[in-house]
Amino acid sequence: MSNSTHFAKTPEPPYYAVIFTSRRTEDDYGYGKMADRMETLATGRPGFLGIESARDAEGFGITISYWETTEAIAAWKADLSHVAAQDLGKQRWYEHYEVRVARVERAYGKPHE
Amino acid sequence: MSNSTHFAKTPEPPYYAVIFTSRRTEDDYGYGKMADRMETLATGRPGFLGIESARDAEGFGITISYWETTEAIAAWKADLSHVAAQDLGKQRWYEHYEVRVARVERAYGKPHE
Repeated sequence: MSNSTHFAKTPEPPYYAVIFTSRRTEDDYGYGKMADRMETLATGRPGFLGIESARDAEGFGITISYWETTEAIAAWKADLSHVAAQDLGKQRWYEHYEVRVARVERAYGKPHE
Repeated sequence: MSNSTHFAKTPEPPYYAVIFTSRRTEDDYGYGKMADRMETLATGRPGFLGIESARDAEGFGITISYWETTEAIAAWKADLSHVAAQDLGKQRWYEHYEVRVARVERAYGKPHE
């Protein structure tokens, strides 16, 4: 996802994380363009806090989006553009994926620890 | 982390996730060997459920470890071998990192959705 700035600037917990782990197929079929479009759309949604993403050379990737509430997550999951992208993801782009919705309870880091 | 099998086989929620996002320095100083050793040690800890990891070509990485309880997470954080690795991480290996501890409340995926 090319417009990620990598580290998400999230507020003090609690907030929510959607952890998406995936292995890509070799089928491109507009994947990069769709991923960028979905990230842009997500970023504009109410309750969106940030996104972090990494994919290794073997096609295994992790994307985490952060949200204020579970309602914001449910609304984004049901967004019609996103539903179409999810369908293509299942059919063409991902041979395997896992989605986990989690409540972030504690956070710390460097340099601001 | 070379001994990852990529997808973690986690049980039905609830359980906990430690989300570690990082940007590496260019200082190797035994990083790969230590990362492998920490993953092996974590895997043997009580309450450990699995680990998933991806790092892109630019040095931005996400590692998520899954645990049964917050007590298991705290015990692993305080393990003396791990404390030494955390110190080296802060001093040499990571120019920036964030740690988020989250309670996984819901999970689904493909192929088993």
